[in-house]
Amino acid sequence: MTVKTTPKIGIIPGDPSGIGPELVAKLLAAPDVRARADILLIGDRHVFELGQQQTGKPFVMQEVSRDEDTPPSVFAPDDGFALHALHTIQPSEVSIATHSKASGQSTLRCLDRALDLIKNKAIDALVFAPLNKTSMHLAGIGHADELHYMAEKLEVRGYISELNTLDAMWTSRVTSHIALKDVADAITGARIERASFLIDQTLRRAGYENPRVAVAGLNPHAGDGGNFGTEEIEIIAPAVRAMADKGMTVTGPWPSDTVFLKAIAGEIDAVVTMYHDQGQIALKLLGFDRGVTVQGGLPVPVTTPAHGTAFDISGQNRAEVGAMKAAFVMAHRMVTHWNKDSEL
Amino acid sequence: MTVKTTPKIGIIPGDPSGIGPELVAKLLAAPDVRARADILLIGDRHVFELGQQQTGKPFVMQEVSRDEDTPPSVFAPDDGFALHALHTIQPSEVSIATHSKASGQSTLRCLDRALDLIKNKAIDALVFAPLNKTSMHLAGIGHADELHYMAEKLEVRGYISELNTLDAMWTSRVTSHIALKDVADAITGARIERASFLIDQTLRRAGYENPRVAVAGLNPHAGDGGNFGTEEIEIIAPAVRAMADKGMTVTGPWPSDTVFLKAIAGEIDAVVTMYHDQGQIALKLLGFDRGVTVQGGLPVPVTTPAHGTAFDISGQNRAEVGAMKAAFVMAHRMVTHWNKDSEL
Repeated sequence: MTVKTTPKIGIIPGDPSGIGPELVAKLLAAPDVRARADILLIGDRHVFELGQQQTGKPFVMQEVSRDEDTPPSVFAPDDGFALHALHTIQPSEVSIATHSKASGQSTLRCLDRALDLIKNKAIDALVFAPLNKTSMHLAGIGHADELHYMAEKLEVRGYISELNTLDAMWTSRVTSHIALKDVADAITGARIERASFLIDQTLRRAGYENPRVAVAGLNPHAGDGGNFGTEEIEIIAPAVRAMADKGMTVTGPWPSDTVFLKAIAGEIDAVVTMYHDQGQIALKLLGFDRGVTVQGGLPVPVTTPAHGTAFDISGQNRAEVGAMKAAFVMAHRMVTHWNKDSEL
Repeated sequence: MTVKTTPKIGIIPGDPSGIGPELVAKLLAAPDVRARADILLIGDRHVFELGQQQTGKPFVMQEVSRDEDTPPSVFAPDDGFALHALHTIQPSEVSIATHSKASGQSTLRCLDRALDLIKNKAIDALVFAPLNKTSMHLAGIGHADELHYMAEKLEVRGYISELNTLDAMWTSRVTSHIALKDVADAITGARIERASFLIDQTLRRAGYENPRVAVAGLNPHAGDGGNFGTEEIEIIAPAVRAMADKGMTVTGPWPSDTVFLKAIAGEIDAVVTMYHDQGQIALKLLGFDRGVTVQGGLPVPVTTPAHGTAFDISGQNRAEVGAMKAAFVMAHRMVTHWNKDSEL
């Protein structure tokens, strides 16, 4: 048996009604993509062909397995990309820029098959084009989000969390979709350490040798020495000290209105935020749509563009491929470092 | 008695140890400043001379009153700027980039005199170079901030609040320096209306005929229909409707991670934020240091650069004059519209 050093990266088209098929076609047209990885397209041939039609960027697909129960064994045919062909939706059911149960089911079946291939070790990483939450709900997904869905299918027991990365800045959250009035009570040392360790681990897997993690404060001016709240003194600072004692390069609590300036200036690599909007206000202003979401805590790299299905422009060949390409590059980078890590 | 249509704008140098004197010299060197207003410099001659030395930008000062109890009556001498000379600090007491009681006292005495001139109607507006809170505290100021100090001296009984403006975006806050855990309880319809009306009034005085005010939500995704908090439904939306019924062009509640994108896109003029960091994270990322702080609720326009005394670069001729000039332009614009307003 030969050792294959080229990463095997699976790609699914996401919601067929959105900009996913277009993004896949644009990604595959980039000259360096093929050189970097053995790519396996997972999904319906006609959906990938739709992206080719939408963009005018054709590519050859070579089916590597006609049997859905057998993992594909051949990658990178000379004259095109490997296709693990599925039959999840009829061409007539694909309706551009429309929420539907059919497109939600198609999305989930492609995702399920990709997760099977991860479990079978047939692929080293997964990049998915944008999913549509409404259509997935119509198709019956009962999970909080796709990360929880994937974690269940992959039988992950540990801590999971979406991580956002934009340019050279990463963020994670201690709390997420809860009311602001409940945030302060939800801030605990254990939760801060969990979110910080996950981002530290993920950055190491993304190639950072010694990630510099900054923990944001909760209150204005990080509490101003206890004048506007005591969580910094009683909870956050002790958590930061505990993590530093364990060897992490972690600092804080930093005032949340300046910590992102430190990230922009390149003084830190990651910000651990205390609540949803603390990080999201910054990320969206900095150009969230250019960013990548990493599904933190899964056994292999799984990445996706931070933006959504963009029904307002889908089918119009107007989608920017930047975030999709960044998601691919990140998955590739993480496979390389992840494997190196596991050799230690 | 003749009606003077050129605005009379007072300028104080702020903390003499900081970048204030340098900023005044750079402001006065701008060719259009003199044409726009009758300027009255209020402070120590040697402090203004310090700024000339620091910048190599000389200007002539002509004393218009040697008696501190008599308001100056002559503005805009042909060969220089009018100086209302004070004696608040010895040249030997000015120590660059140093906190001191002496510089705090100097700052407060210049400010006091400017407030007297406002009360006497000797000036129409005031622009102050950055003050230093630590030095003012050493000098015994017991107020929350300079706005509360000024409001007391000017016997203002109404609602006051600092407003921040950067490029074409204005922000005000419903709550400010309080712990995050106390924010939700402090959000009331009355407070939202107060903060919204102040920014609406101030924008009208800054020349906006029909300011478009956007009120931010409190919770992630503005509560997502009540899933993550109910303040949007129970408090914020009713307050917005009540204000719209009174004729304001006001919308919301908007998710706080996208409302600033609407401001950048020019779709709105002002954002009413619910808590300190909601606005400050956005402003600092967008370049807070270029912005202007307007002291909202005072009887005349009072403006200052949003940045501080910048001890790290003071005395080095490295300070950017942009925000100081923007503060001057804003004061000038507000005088023009303010007077027009009061003629109605």
